[in-house]
Amino acid sequence: MGRVTVRRKVTTIDLATPATSTRPDTLTVEEPLELRVNGSPLTVTMRTPGHDIELVHGFLMSEGLIRSAADIALARYCEGAVVSGESGFDENTYNVIDVTLAPGVTPPDASAARAFLTSSSCGVCGTASIEQLRTRTAFDVASDPMGVTPSTLLALPDALRARQRSFDRTGGLHAAGLFTGEGELLAVREDVGRHNAVDKVLGWAAREGRVPLAGHVLAVSGRASFELTQKALMAGVPVLAAVSASSSLAVELATEAGMTLVGFVRDPRMTVYAGARRLGISDA
Amino acid sequence: MGRVTVRRKVTTIDLATPATSTRPDTLTVEEPLELRVNGSPLTVTMRTPGHDIELVHGFLMSEGLIRSAADIALARYCEGAVVSGESGFDENTYNVIDVTLAPGVTPPDASAARAFLTSSSCGVCGTASIEQLRTRTAFDVASDPMGVTPSTLLALPDALRARQRSFDRTGGLHAAGLFTGEGELLAVREDVGRHNAVDKVLGWAAREGRVPLAGHVLAVSGRASFELTQKALMAGVPVLAAVSASSSLAVELATEAGMTLVGFVRDPRMTVYAGARRLGISDA
Repeated sequence: MGRVTVRRKVTTIDLATPATSTRPDTLTVEEPLELRVNGSPLTVTMRTPGHDIELVHGFLMSEGLIRSAADIALARYCEGAVVSGESGFDENTYNVIDVTLAPGVTPPDASAARAFLTSSSCGVCGTASIEQLRTRTAFDVASDPMGVTPSTLLALPDALRARQRSFDRTGGLHAAGLFTGEGELLAVREDVGRHNAVDKVLGWAAREGRVPLAGHVLAVSGRASFELTQKALMAGVPVLAAVSASSSLAVELATEAGMTLVGFVRDPRMTVYAGARRLGISDA
Repeated sequence: MGRVTVRRKVTTIDLATPATSTRPDTLTVEEPLELRVNGSPLTVTMRTPGHDIELVHGFLMSEGLIRSAADIALARYCEGAVVSGESGFDENTYNVIDVTLAPGVTPPDASAARAFLTSSSCGVCGTASIEQLRTRTAFDVASDPMGVTPSTLLALPDALRARQRSFDRTGGLHAAGLFTGEGELLAVREDVGRHNAVDKVLGWAAREGRVPLAGHVLAVSGRASFELTQKALMAGVPVLAAVSASSSLAVELATEAGMTLVGFVRDPRMTVYAGARRLGISDA
């Protein structure tokens, strides 16, 4: 459990030398994680093992099923999820998590099992998706008065990478980091899926009692999609900073929700897609 | 419909100059696409509009619900999916597709709506996922005798990028390309989601009657995940070439299925994770 990387024999070909050699290489581990809520399977995600309890907290929060860690009575690896180990005894796969919701918390209905926020009944247009999402967001990000300086944002990718270097020897991991408005790094998580990296870091915050994340900045190593923007919004994050581009729907959602969305954060430049006022300049 | 990019006003900040300016920028369009099969909603994906009919063909094939385009009697935009247009008349959103399966083709059951291949009942470990997948694959990739030279593979990323440059002015699109074993480019598709780019190109092949894709190479602009490897396998592709890293489970699946999986394809080097024999060298 919790293996982020594995060693595996690969063949490298170099036509310049030319040379072909076989050597062990480090790969990012990808394994399925099944989430069961109150005894019923809800979803399976392909993820990098580790911080799985945080992952399910973040996932359930971003889907609107919980608002804080207090809404979960128990989250643990399923005891029945075993495979035959090399020892001859059954071994837990640590790939199935059972969540028991706290009394009074509405469990997902059968349709919710696939009708998550990004994929909910409208299916008609981005505007309808955003509209439905906004009605389910518990936190008023637009009213968050926090500000952040451009130089603080420009320093975040390096801070992410500095932490990432120690873990990622594979070239195959996405990172997400939670920062204060002054640029102090609170938590970094990595995963083969960037949505998982975000769920893990937001789930960490939920378990720390920090949600809603007013005054905080979420930084991601890749692009800002609608899905990541939605996750930030559901946790009450007022500023999302991405190293790469944003999609159209991510910008629309951020604009509608009053969130600050910044992309191509590459010192000394960045692109502000929404909420420029938090950077001390008037909104575009 | 079919808009791949939109123009939107953004603010750029450059601390080196220093200068802050507001100008129109080009963003990748991201919109939800709902897929209905025989009248029932099956899934919603966030995708870049365009080539949607190919997308649903590729998606249904990679989920094992169809084996060829002949299994689909009709695929068209839903007439009822409308929003009020600026003209005052209703306009089709082109974000909902109705698929009618051919007579005799088993429709997905209710559980299939969420229990797709990557997320199917096992949920226990990668081995079980692979096992279940292999039993559902119609095509014997392992027996495909095709070979490909390293220099042919090394030329694919440039061929992809050459086609991509003309479309992608956003820095936000993934590309997938289908090639012959001699490196001839057959089709390129781009999308904000790399799984969609792959579905579109494989769906193109299905509609062209080219599935199973024995003797072909699928090239992707990013990483090779389990999901992309699975999609290639379900279409009978014997060689998958990725510009970036592979995950552990992608390598396990390729190895089990007898597929050739190559990563970090960056002239003059590449890393062979599985099926090196097709490159004329013994398997690692």
